[in-house]
Amino acid sequence: MAAQRRTVTVITILFGVLLGCLGRSDDDPRLIDLTWTLKIGIPVHPIYPNYTFTIINRGVTGALGVYLESNEIYMSEHTGTHIDAPAHFAQGAWRLDQIPFGHLTGPGVMIDVRDKIGDNPDYPVTPQDLQDWEREYGRIPDGAILMLRTGWGEQFWEEGPAAYLGTDHTRNASLLHSPGLHPAAAQWIVDNRDVKAVGFDTISADPGDSTTYETHLILLPNNVLILENVAHLDEMPPTGSTVYAMPIKIGDGSGAPSRVFAIVDDRTSAGVTTTPNLIFIVTSVIMIILQAL
Amino acid sequence: MAAQRRTVTVITILFGVLLGCLGRSDDDPRLIDLTWTLKIGIPVHPIYPNYTFTIINRGVTGALGVYLESNEIYMSEHTGTHIDAPAHFAQGAWRLDQIPFGHLTGPGVMIDVRDKIGDNPDYPVTPQDLQDWEREYGRIPDGAILMLRTGWGEQFWEEGPAAYLGTDHTRNASLLHSPGLHPAAAQWIVDNRDVKAVGFDTISADPGDSTTYETHLILLPNNVLILENVAHLDEMPPTGSTVYAMPIKIGDGSGAPSRVFAIVDDRTSAGVTTTPNLIFIVTSVIMIILQAL
Repeated sequence: MAAQRRTVTVITILFGVLLGCLGRSDDDPRLIDLTWTLKIGIPVHPIYPNYTFTIINRGVTGALGVYLESNEIYMSEHTGTHIDAPAHFAQGAWRLDQIPFGHLTGPGVMIDVRDKIGDNPDYPVTPQDLQDWEREYGRIPDGAILMLRTGWGEQFWEEGPAAYLGTDHTRNASLLHSPGLHPAAAQWIVDNRDVKAVGFDTISADPGDSTTYETHLILLPNNVLILENVAHLDEMPPTGSTVYAMPIKIGDGSGAPSRVFAIVDDRTSAGVTTTPNLIFIVTSVIMIILQAL
Repeated sequence: MAAQRRTVTVITILFGVLLGCLGRSDDDPRLIDLTWTLKIGIPVHPIYPNYTFTIINRGVTGALGVYLESNEIYMSEHTGTHIDAPAHFAQGAWRLDQIPFGHLTGPGVMIDVRDKIGDNPDYPVTPQDLQDWEREYGRIPDGAILMLRTGWGEQFWEEGPAAYLGTDHTRNASLLHSPGLHPAAAQWIVDNRDVKAVGFDTISADPGDSTTYETHLILLPNNVLILENVAHLDEMPPTGSTVYAMPIKIGDGSGAPSRVFAIVDDRTSAGVTTTPNLIFIVTSVIMIILQAL
C-alpha cells in the first residue's frame, strides 16, 4: 500500500507541475480591431466637416530622388472611430490629454441589443436591457468598457452617410436616425456601476431623435468616456476581453480619432484558463483522501 | 513516520495550490504611454507642414444651448509620435491600413545607446551596439518592437523644433542633427533578426546628416515599420514589456499619428512570474525524496 500511495503521490505531483506549466503560457491572445478605416466620404455627424485626405507625394520626388508617399489630413476630432473626452460637453472636465492612461483600457463588455430594436431606428437602450445582459452574463465588472451592439455599423457604415445617419439630409442633425443609450440607462450606469467608457456602433451616444444630448450630458461630466463609430462589434465576445481605446494625444482636445481594439484571451473567455488549477486542486483533494484511507 | 509523511504531503500540496493561485493572477500590468502630446509648435520634419489645431466651439453654443468644446486638426501623417508604413518609401508595399493588426504589437526591447553617442549629434547606431545589448540581455526576441533610446526626446522635444532638430533652420532637411540607425545596422536587423518595428526618440530613423534615407530604404521594403518621435523611453525597461504601436487607421496612408504604449508585466520583467512554479517544482522534488526515504 505504501508503494501504491507513493506512486499516486508522484503521479499527482508531476501532473500538477505539468498543468501548472500549461496554465502559465500567455501566448497568442486574439486581437480584434474595432476601428473603421478613415477615408473620404465616411459618415460624420452633421455638425462636423467632412474628412479630408490630400495626397502630397506619390512617386519619385525630385528633392529626395527616391520613391516617396506622404499625405495630409484635415478633420474634426470627432471623426471616424473616436473618443469623446469629458470636456466635449462639460466645462472644466478632462480634456483628451488629461484622461488618465489607465482610463483608456478595461474589461470589455459587449451588449447585443439588436433584438430589442424592432422597427424603431431611434431605439433608446433601457436600464432593463442592461439588466437583462447582467442576468445572462453576470454583473458588469468594475472599470469596464461597455460596447452597445445595435447592428448599425455592420449594416450601414460602408453604405455611406445617408444610410448610417438615417437621412439623406446629412447636414441636418435634427433628421438623424440611429439607436442610442436612453438617458435613464446612462443615469443607471453612473449611479450603479463603475464603468470607464461606453461605446457605440452608431454616430452618437444619444438616440438619433434626441435634440438635447442628455446621454452625453450624463456620462461625460461623470468621467464616463464615449466611443462612437466603433467597428466590428460582431467579432467581440460578450465577456472575456480587454478593450483598449487609444486616441491620438491631441493637446486640449475635446476628443480624438482612436484605434480601438480588444484583446480576447480565448482561454479566459472559454473558461479554460482556470481549468488547470481546478483540475490540480481536485486531483490534490483526491490524493489527500487516498493518503488518508 | 506514515503520519509525518502524510503531513508533509498535505502541506506541500496546499503550498503548491496556493502558489499556483498566486502565479495565475494577471492583475495590474503597468502601462507606459510612449506618446508625445500633439500641440501647436511641436517639432516636425522640415518636409512636412506644421501641426494645426483650430478651436471651433468652446462655450455655450446657440445651436445646442449647452456647453460644447470641439476642435479641428490639420497635419501630415508623419506628425508627432507616428508610424511609417512600408509604402512611405516602397512602392506597392503595405499602406497604413494594410498593415496586419498583429504587426503593430510585439515584445518590447529598449536599447539605451546614450553612452555611445559621445559628442556626435548624428551618431549612427551600429550593428556592434545591437550586439552589445544582446550580450547583456539575450537575443532580440522574434516579432520584437525595438526602441532606440538616444536621449534626444527627453532632452530636446519640449524645447521645440530648433533644439530637437539640431538646427535653427527648421525648414532645411540638410541641416538636421540627431542620432539614428546606421544603414549597416538596419541591414543586420533585416538579415539576422525577426523584428516588426524599430522606434526612435528622434525625428527620423536615419541620422540627421543622412541625405539618402538609406535606413528607411532598408527597413520599410522589408516590412520593418518605423516609429518616430517616441516619448518617455526612460520609463521603458530593456526587456519584459509588450509594445503596442496603434496608429489611427488612415486609408491609403503612408503612415499615421499613433498612440504608442508599453505594457510591462512587472512580475515577468522582474523574473517573478515563474518563481511560484519553480518553488512548487523544488518543493515537490523535496517531497518526493522525503517520501522515498
